[in-house]
Amino acid sequence: MKTFPSLPKSVEIVEVCPRDGFQSVKEFIPTETKIAIIDELAGTGIKTMEVTSFVSPKAIPQMADAAEVMAAFRAKWKGRVTSVALIPNLRGAEGALAAEADWMNFVVSASEDHNMANTKRTVEESLAEMEKVAGLRGSTKLRVSVATAFACPFAGPVDPGKVLRVVDRALEAGADGITLADTIGTADPKYLAATLSVIREKYGDYPFTLHLHDTYGMALANMLTALGMGFASFDAAAGGLGGCPFAPGAAGNAATEDMVNMAEQMGVDTGIDLLKVLAAVRKMQSAYGLKIASHLASTKKGLEGNCPS
Amino acid sequence: MKTFPSLPKSVEIVEVCPRDGFQSVKEFIPTETKIAIIDELAGTGIKTMEVTSFVSPKAIPQMADAAEVMAAFRAKWKGRVTSVALIPNLRGAEGALAAEADWMNFVVSASEDHNMANTKRTVEESLAEMEKVAGLRGSTKLRVSVATAFACPFAGPVDPGKVLRVVDRALEAGADGITLADTIGTADPKYLAATLSVIREKYGDYPFTLHLHDTYGMALANMLTALGMGFASFDAAAGGLGGCPFAPGAAGNAATEDMVNMAEQMGVDTGIDLLKVLAAVRKMQSAYGLKIASHLASTKKGLEGNCPS
Repeated sequence: MKTFPSLPKSVEIVEVCPRDGFQSVKEFIPTETKIAIIDELAGTGIKTMEVTSFVSPKAIPQMADAAEVMAAFRAKWKGRVTSVALIPNLRGAEGALAAEADWMNFVVSASEDHNMANTKRTVEESLAEMEKVAGLRGSTKLRVSVATAFACPFAGPVDPGKVLRVVDRALEAGADGITLADTIGTADPKYLAATLSVIREKYGDYPFTLHLHDTYGMALANMLTALGMGFASFDAAAGGLGGCPFAPGAAGNAATEDMVNMAEQMGVDTGIDLLKVLAAVRKMQSAYGLKIASHLASTKKGLEGNCPS
Repeated sequence: MKTFPSLPKSVEIVEVCPRDGFQSVKEFIPTETKIAIIDELAGTGIKTMEVTSFVSPKAIPQMADAAEVMAAFRAKWKGRVTSVALIPNLRGAEGALAAEADWMNFVVSASEDHNMANTKRTVEESLAEMEKVAGLRGSTKLRVSVATAFACPFAGPVDPGKVLRVVDRALEAGADGITLADTIGTADPKYLAATLSVIREKYGDYPFTLHLHDTYGMALANMLTALGMGFASFDAAAGGLGGCPFAPGAAGNAATEDMVNMAEQMGVDTGIDLLKVLAAVRKMQSAYGLKIASHLASTKKGLEGNCPS
């Protein structure tokens, strides 16, 4: 880039720590602790939060209290912060619908290998399941997350054609939003840009959300690349928690505080109060013993006086 | 960037862990340990290493063995890996010349406040000292590092005019190379690009080296931005060690392994064997107890099968 690309004026950050972050914690986090952290995070200015996932408690015991967590969230934040529940199948949808989540986020992988590891289904079986979910959702919004949209931990690079296949079917089924996920964080900016170019060419300005992991430190470089291409919605997890239990090598999500810091310094509005996120993250660490992996929360001096813009 | 920028075919990575990394370690690292780690790193394919610094042992006790370390390096690697010694003043230059380093790296800050904290001199006094060093260097090469070229921990954003002032004087004094340092890692890609544009406008294609810290996780995003503007030389520290003792808030350097990984995935040749760097870093951690801060060295699964390109 001989000249720096023009960036969106504002971006949406979706807080996914309570789902993607918590699911990576081995010891069960007591339900009251989950709710306390969620309340802190919901007050940072974010507009949308992935609150929990309705999955088999055998597969992911950490999410066994999904209904209770969602009920507590709705009691306090309904109408102020949009709630999302991740679901991998019809059974999950039933749970999410019963809990009255604002959105369901149906996850299906572009890669056969990862979809099988994640859901014990072929991609085609998951897509058929997605269509059933779309049919019974009523007024609940449906997001479809394309996992391993860039690379798969088992199969390596993922052909963009496989991503288009899932996106096409999601749009045909009437999805209200689509997320493209770098599930294991191996996409480099050049590779990411190549797939996103294919996506742009086919779907124009459709407002995709990107879900980036920071396994190899490339999350912010990838965010920058996507911003420069006009993408303006990103998942992020406070504290950089996260990782896929069925994707070997996956590490934490891009940290909310790192993303907000870079975006705001560049004049891209997030609507999020960075100091409130940092306070929540430090509490997650000190009061609840969660292992924090963000850059910002690791600095000793905080932000005062250090920001060049 | 609507289209991804074209990147250089290859980049130079300068290994600065033995200087910038070690100086951030509080407990004295025994000289034999330093030499053992340096030998490991010198065998990774790098062409240039900042081996030590000739500074007041009162100010930085960790570097008290500079002469011994440089002698050991030259005995083994002379003619194969170029040796650099950092110096802050004339006295340091005398030490570096006596030790027969291939290059001296004279550091002066663009920001008055940081220069005073770092060297107890005004910028003008440091520039005059630099000119004296240039006069007595003989066949030894002289690099000038512009510290706080983007932001200062005390004064905030640094006016590019202050950077040009130092660069002008360095070139007039006959410097053989110039490094621009984001000493505290607060530069965001947009801010970095703005200063680098001013630099490009004045000095054309002069091959500056960039020295980036990863305090806020923006090192790779900044590297990507600089690569896209044609900059092709970067300092990096194995394990992400580093930090300026006189810059509050500074954290580790961009990690060699993280930079090499991203560059090589994007098809930018570094000449460095990533697995050898990782082996050295894991040994720095397990055998010598150094605290590692890189992304790559924190992954459990290594790299096999995870790279999309």
